Amino acid sequence: MAERLSHIIELIKPLDKEAMVEAQARQNTLTKPQGSLGRLEELSIQLAGIQAKPIPQIRHKAIIIMAGDHGVVAEGVGNWPQAVTAQMIYNFLSGGAGINVLARQTGARIIVVDMGVATELEASPQLLSRKIAPGTQNMVLSPAMTREQAVRAIETGIEVVASEVANGLDIVGTGDMGIGNTTASSAICAAITGRPVAEVTGRGTGITDEQLAHKVEVINRALVVNRPDPRQPLDVLAKVGGFEIGGLVGVMLAAAAHRIPVVIDGFISGAAALIATALSPKLKDFLIPAHVSAEAGHRRLLSHLGLSPLLDLGMRLGEGTGAALGIFLAETAARLLAEMSTFTEAGVSERSNLDN
Amino acid sequence: MAERLSHIIELIKPLDKEAMVEAQARQNTLTKPQGSLGRLEELSIQLAGIQAKPIPQIRHKAIIIMAGDHGVVAEGVGNWPQAVTAQMIYNFLSGGAGINVLARQTGARIIVVDMGVATELEASPQLLSRKIAPGTQNMVLSPAMTREQAVRAIETGIEVVASEVANGLDIVGTGDMGIGNTTASSAICAAITGRPVAEVTGRGTGITDEQLAHKVEVINRALVVNRPDPRQPLDVLAKVGGFEIGGLVGVMLAAAAHRIPVVIDGFISGAAALIATALSPKLKDFLIPAHVSAEAGHRRLLSHLGLSPLLDLGMRLGEGTGAALGIFLAETAARLLAEMSTFTEAGVSERSNLDN
Repeated sequence: MAERLSHIIELIKPLDKEAMVEAQARQNTLTKPQGSLGRLEELSIQLAGIQAKPIPQIRHKAIIIMAGDHGVVAEGVGNWPQAVTAQMIYNFLSGGAGINVLARQTGARIIVVDMGVATELEASPQLLSRKIAPGTQNMVLSPAMTREQAVRAIETGIEVVASEVANGLDIVGTGDMGIGNTTASSAICAAITGRPVAEVTGRGTGITDEQLAHKVEVINRALVVNRPDPRQPLDVLAKVGGFEIGGLVGVMLAAAAHRIPVVIDGFISGAAALIATALSPKLKDFLIPAHVSAEAGHRRLLSHLGLSPLLDLGMRLGEGTGAALGIFLAETAARLLAEMSTFTEAGVSERSNLDN
Repeated sequence: MAERLSHIIELIKPLDKEAMVEAQARQNTLTKPQGSLGRLEELSIQLAGIQAKPIPQIRHKAIIIMAGDHGVVAEGVGNWPQAVTAQMIYNFLSGGAGINVLARQTGARIIVVDMGVATELEASPQLLSRKIAPGTQNMVLSPAMTREQAVRAIETGIEVVASEVANGLDIVGTGDMGIGNTTASSAICAAITGRPVAEVTGRGTGITDEQLAHKVEVINRALVVNRPDPRQPLDVLAKVGGFEIGGLVGVMLAAAAHRIPVVIDGFISGAAALIATALSPKLKDFLIPAHVSAEAGHRRLLSHLGLSPLLDLGMRLGEGTGAALGIFLAETAARLLAEMSTFTEAGVSERSNLDN
């Protein structure tokens, strides 16, 4: 494995138990019945463990949108032309996409990274050009990328996080853009979880039953042609993955190494999490699963990861839209822990053991 | 029925279908696969229908916290002293409660109303004194309140909304404070839905199995003593309800009459919604169920109302904390509809009927 990647994996440490104990102790003194904030209490404790702070802070928020194209679209796995990947990037840069609206509302900055878009994109100060190749190879004919490209994709994600940390970063959300990337994600999911392709393949942006059967057949063919080794996550990423997925793997690993919570979005981010947690099982504790998407297979993917989503709103847009909502909830959790008064401060009687 | 109450019920009109059709048409032109924002798309359409605006706006946000005490606490139905109701009101006024933190984060103002707290509260510019009585009567001995008090409680809620509308109000969330009010809410829920008390009674702020059995027995006794008529919502409110619950009934009816969406919080707000929708079935379309709380019976209550909650975070704090999160999501939905670019504006290709 490449040195930079091995190094970042070594840097991932367990959660800080002391901070978690202190955070839990503080929760128990706040003016509410113990546990009555449910998942938000649990989340505050997780954030304390990740940030190694008894009172975690969520101020600097960023969503990293990794974009890439997929050679497999030549097989007709979806309804949208490949040009939409680039068009949507311009939409992100001009502020008109769903993720822009959500990022504005939640006060998160957006970082858009060209990891491997087929189109040559116009330069923009808000766009990081890290193109590894103009789209992956068609995975029914050959591996999607070389092993070296897979490592470069991950290391690019690591570098992006490193420079964002320098700008201040308390939490990061993962986002994606790439026509065809539900196909790659289903292939990764099938390869790593061992579930039948049909169980982990959905309608992506919206395809018919017939198209879905074709998509399943294409993914099965890609797996037969490439034989990715489920015990070797880099092999899976290279053979049936995508550049943006590799980038997200790097984002997750680097964030955890920097003790930054990672809010994972939907199915594509989930596929990246399968690879990233296979590379570093400790990573799992740093992940906050924002939502379960409407994409078939996402629920199964999350349950394979042992993660329980915060939200279930039937969303399936990608871009980091679910992650933006998850970041909002993480901030809520941190603020409640930090800002609520204790029983003593507020002069509120604690629960008695007497009735009434 | 009192005149003011009858009048407000007459003012509740159906959702504006034209605005909903226009909102749906706009959704279909926005740069995303149709339907990919899931519940947030549905919510934007509902908001359009409520506000009668093709592009609804959520700017002025308020959470109305109705507070009251309950005579039934004399039966030992909970663990917290009655004084906590007043203490928590002071906590709301000084900004240290959970709802304060959430309201600050979501930009909602808080209105605290003393509908019938047992303690004499110190005056505060942020507290509306509308005390109907210093707590309800103990419902195992007599009706919780008179019919006239029940009407006054509802009409007080109506007046509070009327004055808030004058301050600008695009959405309202319901909140509650009242030691003992899960007992009253379970009684209302059992009376109106006809479910056995044990099925709709939970642990409130946290009681043991033995205490829960006692709580169920107390509620059953109150229902036997009072025989509330399930076909007469005012009778149910008067006999086994609470002043704050009556206030919330008024808030819901008045908001709907003013075409203002109502985000309902947890179990207590749900009990108020049972009464309010029984008074005006049209009201239901104006309700946004923020979350399903951890309180046993809330899920059943929502399903009786035919409402599907947005969130399921295991919360059970009340105060409007769930409603605050629901207001955030409603704002998200409205902003997405208003601010996302259309395919034409962004120069993004629409989904083709050709593969790829």
